[in-house]
Amino acid sequence: MKKLSILGSTGSIGTQTLDVVRQHSNDFKVVGISAYGSERDVELLVEQIKEFKPRAVAVHLEEAASMLRQVASENNCSVYYGQDSLVKIATMEEADTLVTAVVGSVGLVPTLEAIKAKKNIALANKETLVCAGSIVMREVKRHGVSLMPIDSEHSAIFQSLQGNRRQDLRRIILTCSGGPFREWSKDQIDQAGWEQALKHPTWNMGGKITVDSATLMNKGLEVIEAHWLYDVPYEQISVVVHPQSIIHSMVEYIDGSIIAQLGVHDMRLPIQYALSYPTRITSGSYAFLDLVKTHQLTFYEPDLVRFPSLAYAYEAGRLGGTMPTVMNAANEVAVMEYFLKGSIKVGDITKVVRHTMDIHKSCFVKEPEIEDIMHADRWAREHARSVLDVAISDGWNKIHKDI
Amino acid sequence: MKKLSILGSTGSIGTQTLDVVRQHSNDFKVVGISAYGSERDVELLVEQIKEFKPRAVAVHLEEAASMLRQVASENNCSVYYGQDSLVKIATMEEADTLVTAVVGSVGLVPTLEAIKAKKNIALANKETLVCAGSIVMREVKRHGVSLMPIDSEHSAIFQSLQGNRRQDLRRIILTCSGGPFREWSKDQIDQAGWEQALKHPTWNMGGKITVDSATLMNKGLEVIEAHWLYDVPYEQISVVVHPQSIIHSMVEYIDGSIIAQLGVHDMRLPIQYALSYPTRITSGSYAFLDLVKTHQLTFYEPDLVRFPSLAYAYEAGRLGGTMPTVMNAANEVAVMEYFLKGSIKVGDITKVVRHTMDIHKSCFVKEPEIEDIMHADRWAREHARSVLDVAISDGWNKIHKDI
Repeated sequence: MKKLSILGSTGSIGTQTLDVVRQHSNDFKVVGISAYGSERDVELLVEQIKEFKPRAVAVHLEEAASMLRQVASENNCSVYYGQDSLVKIATMEEADTLVTAVVGSVGLVPTLEAIKAKKNIALANKETLVCAGSIVMREVKRHGVSLMPIDSEHSAIFQSLQGNRRQDLRRIILTCSGGPFREWSKDQIDQAGWEQALKHPTWNMGGKITVDSATLMNKGLEVIEAHWLYDVPYEQISVVVHPQSIIHSMVEYIDGSIIAQLGVHDMRLPIQYALSYPTRITSGSYAFLDLVKTHQLTFYEPDLVRFPSLAYAYEAGRLGGTMPTVMNAANEVAVMEYFLKGSIKVGDITKVVRHTMDIHKSCFVKEPEIEDIMHADRWAREHARSVLDVAISDGWNKIHKDI
Repeated sequence: MKKLSILGSTGSIGTQTLDVVRQHSNDFKVVGISAYGSERDVELLVEQIKEFKPRAVAVHLEEAASMLRQVASENNCSVYYGQDSLVKIATMEEADTLVTAVVGSVGLVPTLEAIKAKKNIALANKETLVCAGSIVMREVKRHGVSLMPIDSEHSAIFQSLQGNRRQDLRRIILTCSGGPFREWSKDQIDQAGWEQALKHPTWNMGGKITVDSATLMNKGLEVIEAHWLYDVPYEQISVVVHPQSIIHSMVEYIDGSIIAQLGVHDMRLPIQYALSYPTRITSGSYAFLDLVKTHQLTFYEPDLVRFPSLAYAYEAGRLGGTMPTVMNAANEVAVMEYFLKGSIKVGDITKVVRHTMDIHKSCFVKEPEIEDIMHADRWAREHARSVLDVAISDGWNKIHKDI
């Protein structure tokens, strides 16, 4: 039986992870859970404490901790709160595996601490590898733990690499649904707001990742993740638009064979695989794929003009160092603090990411340690906010002169 | 370096195997070749002796042997002829791997002898497993040799099984182009002649296998092969029609993941993999797959009413014993001796196969040894010939009364 602690147990991946545990209670036990501590979080955490009986729960907000104390003590569960409480959950002695399911760069430090505490990692948090891939992979190697991807794409790549020699790999082919703007013109995309961006054609996911899927920034982040996870140069990572999202990704070998993983649109499949590997366990609640019903799979070249975020991600990845952190931070601020609140359009996300990356070139660190990454992250957030505030009040023309 | 002997070096698979050797002369050496001995065979064998300098050549026809003697002696190559000469090539000391690329049940005995002589087998000959799967797999296990499939479908399954546990397999999904009659009505199919059947939409293959692809008998034989190769019950082997033949086959696992192998339509890819496994080597002369150019993959349910051969194969496979041999022999006689010579139509192939299977039920052997199989094979051929001769002269109505 694997013992899991889950960072972000109330989010999209967190609740689906708990569903996998629910279906396979002989295989998995939850020993720690955490969430930010919003009202909805507290409600869910109460239910999760009652159902899964974890040994510990952590929340960022102190008042959320107070609200949980009663039910926690009734269920023999410790309560932690504050900045460091995530690390507490990530490194708790009772756990052998950490599921990092929080969104954003807040997942980075606890994941690194868990690796140092010799926990295996099931990773749904993109920022961990995007921002600190070199450090994370170095620590994974040093501490001899496993790092399993939860993303459907990286899970597909992982599965397609099984039983093959690393030196026979020719190319990783990430598939990409193309998002809701796949057939829109550049102008239409740039003018789109959150209502349009949240209409993802195939996957049901959280808000941030759905917007990133619409701009293809999500695919860009996945390219950088794939680079680190599988130690593959960017020239050997391709993206193909595949609107049905049935082939979750592929690996091409030097002999011309392509191995692909296919499945239904259900994150519980890659979550379950990440937890059960190297074995597989029976599908719990989700369906099997019916290719005859699916009937048709199509493939297109991605358009880097209409979707510049994907090009920026390749650029940031190739530059390496602090650049992916900066790109990610600017994008996160733009999406979470402005776009999802209706203050800006898709085109503004792209612009602020581009601007922040350009300015960062002067303070870029090529071989960063974790402090450099945290610093670059903060800098990029502040920079992006100031740029967007000016752009909103005075227009983009003002930016290029003043900042 | 692997040392190969090739049964059927002048046929479609044989010449493509030699092309793989030509592209990878550091990896492979040809030490023995064989062919039937037609005029065209002799021409090709002369070229092959000069180019590949095998240690031995075998032909069925004595006059072909005489014609080869001069060039063979100039190239330090022994010449064999007659029934047993195939076994000579299959078991020659200098070879470590036998490529069985002959068409028909003539491949069976030499392949078994090669297994006993501890040669690894690269198998393109369907009849070896269809007729004698239980015996062949038993001998493979007993002598500790490897049996690698050359068929693109079985190669795809083999590749999709790598790195997974056998007990996690849920289903094998064989893909099938659907052949030239995919959209034809039952009547049109039944009335089709060899000119129509030889127009295969995606693969360029020999005549017998192209006709079998049109009737879906080829897929039926592959279902039986998959059963033996991967020790999977027939309930766990599905067929899906996939007209583009880009996904060469798939394996579904208990967690709902499907692993698939994709590639261009070039038999040199599975041939090369069968020879290079467990490593892969760079594609020599064939192209890499461009999914964007391919653009679309589609999937349909196979129609067992219009294509009864596929249903017959499942039936024969499930019955086991001598029934697959009998089905295959009746089909081979009908296709090679009648259909390809223009004497009968597609519907007659199906009818004679059905009739031979029905009659065989009275002399069926459940656990045959090799002699029972050879006997059933001869019986089915004679039966099929006599049925077809009557059907051609007096019509099918006569058959059901008289035979």
